[in-house]
Amino acid sequence: MHDDPIGGEHLAPVSFSAENHPADLAELLEEMAPEAARVALLALPLGHGAETFGYLPPEIQVALARVLSRGELAAIVTEMNGDDRADLYNRLTPEQQEALLPGLAQAEREDIRRLAAHQEGTAGAIMTSDYATLAPGLTVLQAIGKLRLEAPDKETIYRTYVVDAERRLIGSVRLQTLILAQPQRTVEEVMERTTRAVGVEDDQEEVARSIAKYDIIALPVVDGEGRLVGIVTHDDALDVLQAEATEDFQKVGSVGSMADSIASASIALLYRSRIYWLVLLVFGNLLSGAGLAFFEDTIAAYIVLVFFLPVLIGSGGNAGSQSSTLMVRALATGDVEMKDWGRMFFRELGVAILLGMTMAVAISTIAGFRGGHQVALVVAVSMLLIVTAGSLIGMSMPFILSRFRLDPATASAPLIASIADIMGVVIYFSIARAILLH
Amino acid sequence: MHDDPIGGEHLAPVSFSAENHPADLAELLEEMAPEAARVALLALPLGHGAETFGYLPPEIQVALARVLSRGELAAIVTEMNGDDRADLYNRLTPEQQEALLPGLAQAEREDIRRLAAHQEGTAGAIMTSDYATLAPGLTVLQAIGKLRLEAPDKETIYRTYVVDAERRLIGSVRLQTLILAQPQRTVEEVMERTTRAVGVEDDQEEVARSIAKYDIIALPVVDGEGRLVGIVTHDDALDVLQAEATEDFQKVGSVGSMADSIASASIALLYRSRIYWLVLLVFGNLLSGAGLAFFEDTIAAYIVLVFFLPVLIGSGGNAGSQSSTLMVRALATGDVEMKDWGRMFFRELGVAILLGMTMAVAISTIAGFRGGHQVALVVAVSMLLIVTAGSLIGMSMPFILSRFRLDPATASAPLIASIADIMGVVIYFSIARAILLH
Repeated sequence: MHDDPIGGEHLAPVSFSAENHPADLAELLEEMAPEAARVALLALPLGHGAETFGYLPPEIQVALARVLSRGELAAIVTEMNGDDRADLYNRLTPEQQEALLPGLAQAEREDIRRLAAHQEGTAGAIMTSDYATLAPGLTVLQAIGKLRLEAPDKETIYRTYVVDAERRLIGSVRLQTLILAQPQRTVEEVMERTTRAVGVEDDQEEVARSIAKYDIIALPVVDGEGRLVGIVTHDDALDVLQAEATEDFQKVGSVGSMADSIASASIALLYRSRIYWLVLLVFGNLLSGAGLAFFEDTIAAYIVLVFFLPVLIGSGGNAGSQSSTLMVRALATGDVEMKDWGRMFFRELGVAILLGMTMAVAISTIAGFRGGHQVALVVAVSMLLIVTAGSLIGMSMPFILSRFRLDPATASAPLIASIADIMGVVIYFSIARAILLH
Repeated sequence: MHDDPIGGEHLAPVSFSAENHPADLAELLEEMAPEAARVALLALPLGHGAETFGYLPPEIQVALARVLSRGELAAIVTEMNGDDRADLYNRLTPEQQEALLPGLAQAEREDIRRLAAHQEGTAGAIMTSDYATLAPGLTVLQAIGKLRLEAPDKETIYRTYVVDAERRLIGSVRLQTLILAQPQRTVEEVMERTTRAVGVEDDQEEVARSIAKYDIIALPVVDGEGRLVGIVTHDDALDVLQAEATEDFQKVGSVGSMADSIASASIALLYRSRIYWLVLLVFGNLLSGAGLAFFEDTIAAYIVLVFFLPVLIGSGGNAGSQSSTLMVRALATGDVEMKDWGRMFFRELGVAILLGMTMAVAISTIAGFRGGHQVALVVAVSMLLIVTAGSLIGMSMPFILSRFRLDPATASAPLIASIADIMGVVIYFSIARAILLH
């Protein structure tokens, strides 16, 4: 990153001054104790300080809110962006919320109440009220004059929304268009009439994916009557998509999802996020053990079979992890949809048989040396069936979970591996018993 | 998604007409055979068609380029955005490149040559030349007049870059600022002097993360002498971050990274992307088998030990998968850095011992019923050690890979599970031999 136009490298660390970007200052604040962070934050000019506060992770914001006086907090909150402000409000305790509201002006209080009322995970929860609107009857000259007055306050005025007397969204106009247009024409004449909008209850991930798909800077949000209630901006969309990828990542690794940064998470939180799945998977693995106990006679007669157990159940689990990982991500990005299940299943079957045959040939040569041609046959047939079954289970689980409206990412690699283990034990020793002990 | 301002739901499917967004039209084209897609694409107005073409996935663009005539392709390429155009050019065969260039005007030819020369993965490879520049001596009025002329061509004119006579970046100015400023002031007087910029050779993922961090619409790109050579826009940054998350996802699932969509990938490609890791992991699992063979006497004497084998090695693998997944993502998002290794290691040790103790208590009760108190002791001690060792390996591998400049995501769940398996076999039977056969 170069901070000066000449292109020299940043060698000195960022110092805590108003010349630095709020995002950098927020990183410095994160490392400080709350009391020290309070002093540093209050030393900044108010607008810059409020913006810096907005860049802090939620848990740090709440910690800082605890050490700020009512007046200090109210001053900062007043200057924050509408969406950041509502997010913070939702994270405060009811007592802190009660303490904060009287310090704010009427307009900010109402803005918070309106934005904070929306459910987590909806467009309403991530939208902001910092946008500009125009009436259709204004001339281009009057419109530019209105934007001049409002501009310093608004998150984005690159696209302005045109609303009628009931605040219903009837179009939008780009700043660029206003500048290019003849000053005496009306907004209605130059605006675009079809404006893509989302509902306030729409899923935030779908809204974010729309912004990504159409490469746009912001999407307007309307209520059930088509009235404009907010906008979702590209930077919030990016945050949503990044958080979603992290959450899916953690689920696929069988970790309970942690909103907090893992660098600052406590040992207790890390323990809680992991123990649940570990213990649950123990029961899966114990079933494999029970399966082995069922085949005790076969194992006692052919101890050599045990040596190939790790490679057979491991391969089934690995093949299953691969296909579930591919499907989880493809479903998350929209590359694959529910209706594709049939086509995907038959393709997976083709791929899995090819994979299984390759591995059966490889393993049977080794098994032949170690245990003779009968054991080689048992191991080869088992490998083919286990890899095929593991792949199909791994590929299908995310679809099945989706079908029941559960998160496909719950089909984690360790879960698929555990299921593949049990199945592997049963397939392997059933075939062994049939071929060796007939 | 609502396409009309009243907020009604989209019920009818998108039809192939110029009224629809290029991103939607591109999705329809993807489903068509190349010849049919060619006809549909050429039926659109040229500008809309070129934009639609730009939204197609790279492999479909190349397939379409094959069926378009030289003249048709040249016309579309001329209208495309600079960065999309250069990406397409880099994917064509040398013969196709030779055929394309003569059909283009001098300006487009040079633009392609300049943008296409940058290495994959750098800022240069994702930047575009569609930005506007101003000279510092222009008045605000002259500047707005210049932007009026250039606007329809430029990807973003919301921020314009100010360059001196040698094209060195000396500042930037927001469209908003120009509109608000008095018309007779100069650009130099109203511009911001410190403009964040990146080098043309900088890593594209770091550039994308900067755009995400600072919530900006575009970042200017400068060469070694500080001359402005392009800009990277927020939508390309989002694509880079999404592609990176998908790639890490696939690596953690032990799949070779596939640039293509898995919905349209061939069986051969899917096979190739998976067989490599599966076969490699077989050797890991065979080592576990060899470990078991080494302890043949212990196993023959206590067959009951085999029943606890899946749960012990499985738990080590699961704990390791959890910690490697957390670290891979934390390193990717910048939440954790190389210098944090020491602190992370000791925290992981604390978490792992707690996890291991919980699971040792759980498993020893079951083992006591099945095999008596000596076996219970063996299983409990093994569980504690295996879970602790698995966690530490899983947590350290991404750091070690990073240290050697390899991708931390290569520390996939299956790889960690295989390593944990071998270690689990050795720990378990060593303890069993020491306690049971002394």
